[in-house]
Amino acid sequence: MSLLVTGSIGIDSVSTPHGDVAEVLGGSAVYFSWAAAAFCTVRLVGVVGEDFPSKFTKAFKHPRINPAGLEKRKGSKTFRWSGRYDATMNEATTTAVDLNVLAERAPAVPKAFADSKVVFLAATHPGLQMELLGQIKKPKLVISDTRDLWIRNYRDELIKSLKSIDGIVLNDAEARLLTGEVNLVKALAMIRKLVRKNGPQIVIVKKGEHGCLVAHGPDIFAMPAFPTHNVLDPTGAGDSFAGGLLGYLTGKGKFDVATFKQAVAAGTVMASFTIESFSLKGLQSAHKGKVAARLANFRKMLTKGL
Amino acid sequence: MSLLVTGSIGIDSVSTPHGDVAEVLGGSAVYFSWAAAAFCTVRLVGVVGEDFPSKFTKAFKHPRINPAGLEKRKGSKTFRWSGRYDATMNEATTTAVDLNVLAERAPAVPKAFADSKVVFLAATHPGLQMELLGQIKKPKLVISDTRDLWIRNYRDELIKSLKSIDGIVLNDAEARLLTGEVNLVKALAMIRKLVRKNGPQIVIVKKGEHGCLVAHGPDIFAMPAFPTHNVLDPTGAGDSFAGGLLGYLTGKGKFDVATFKQAVAAGTVMASFTIESFSLKGLQSAHKGKVAARLANFRKMLTKGL
Repeated sequence: MSLLVTGSIGIDSVSTPHGDVAEVLGGSAVYFSWAAAAFCTVRLVGVVGEDFPSKFTKAFKHPRINPAGLEKRKGSKTFRWSGRYDATMNEATTTAVDLNVLAERAPAVPKAFADSKVVFLAATHPGLQMELLGQIKKPKLVISDTRDLWIRNYRDELIKSLKSIDGIVLNDAEARLLTGEVNLVKALAMIRKLVRKNGPQIVIVKKGEHGCLVAHGPDIFAMPAFPTHNVLDPTGAGDSFAGGLLGYLTGKGKFDVATFKQAVAAGTVMASFTIESFSLKGLQSAHKGKVAARLANFRKMLTKGL
Repeated sequence: MSLLVTGSIGIDSVSTPHGDVAEVLGGSAVYFSWAAAAFCTVRLVGVVGEDFPSKFTKAFKHPRINPAGLEKRKGSKTFRWSGRYDATMNEATTTAVDLNVLAERAPAVPKAFADSKVVFLAATHPGLQMELLGQIKKPKLVISDTRDLWIRNYRDELIKSLKSIDGIVLNDAEARLLTGEVNLVKALAMIRKLVRKNGPQIVIVKKGEHGCLVAHGPDIFAMPAFPTHNVLDPTGAGDSFAGGLLGYLTGKGKFDVATFKQAVAAGTVMASFTIESFSLKGLQSAHKGKVAARLANFRKMLTKGL
């Protein structure tokens, strides 16, 4: 089975109580791809400007990342984001953002990628997500992400887009914003009713350090985060979670509730590597043995004794 | 094995977005006892005033609650608390409190209770907790609870008291207040170093709807809350959690990490019954079969597929 991600590739500057980094590689598609690549090959679709540093290009030279959908657009500039975290490390405050090439036309999905079976549409304008999805022939599982911006300003388009896909990943504040419901278990059920009827109907509410709440059709389960002493920078945690999740599912080639629970554990573990370092360092240091060991520890923590 | 609880018995008035109740039975020892009684017999030590309504006395007529330590003190008035929850239902705002009899001398632990093996010291002045504990001969497991008030104003006494006991249950804000550490995994490790060395060294950080984080000696585990659609009133959830936890451990008669994990699941389930109704209604409706079924569901949610 084949996995495709569409999302941003950016240059980030991040300030946290534990340090600062300037002009590092970031973006949803980048974190997603590195996390997914722990479990399967991933096809990347995204666009950068002609200013994109060649030193960052090596991040796409992973044996399991296929960058055939990476467009370097002449005359355009790469997306840039600057953010700051306070001591709680829970939510980023955006201090500067230049959409640049992301405000232009979307990149094309290469013809060779049109047969992708699992698709992740990272957060962007819901109309754009649908335009990208329209280039995939017969996907079996399509999951999107969103942001408060799209919920606030493009609610109707967003809700319409959900009818064409199998599920959505969003954080607790976004789930409350979308539904107007404080109780996340109720919000989960409400959002599930918005997605495509004849699919697995997935809703995942991410709660950062508190783990996540998942609906898989009528089944609901909660999973805590991997307990981490060492949180340096939460940037990319959500996309790493989604990458680990969909990478695991693609590797297994099935989407039943048991495989989904294992996949949520895999996503949780990949997110834990991301937050332990700045930029991609955590994911890049998470070699096969390290991922397998932490995933085994996490599953043991969740189940042993019960 | 025998379980003893010392704590408050009060008359509560609670206002939530889902309704209001006035002058209902409450108090830490009451919630704890009803939750623990699902798993073992519980010995209750507490004091009320002569105004204590006789209609409330029937709450202690549970076949597994031994109220021999319940003192009805002449000339004194029962503890009263009024609180309000906002839409998030996360933390109560105290709108009125009359300590009344709780500001007087502590109740005595009956001689017949002095051989209790598991002891829960509900939140009160740490000096008073130690005075109560001093009346128990050779307890095997002693766990206390605390509040921000005691951490702020009696920090030294609190830290000193921890050296005599096996563990503490506190919420996330209290754990951060006690340690000055935002990362709860780090805070957990710091608090563990404060408790008695030659015991199991238990720290449980309660996070409401997000479940809890537990240290059992060097082992750390996280557990989500039971996903509940129907949160009417969180009052008593923490004490119900502690009651289910220590009741389960007492019933099993052992405190190893596997039994502890099962006990945390039991505590989580008892708390979920409490928040589904006002006052004790949720716990009182949770008959044996209902508890067993929900606990089995919860364990299945946590482990099945992984």
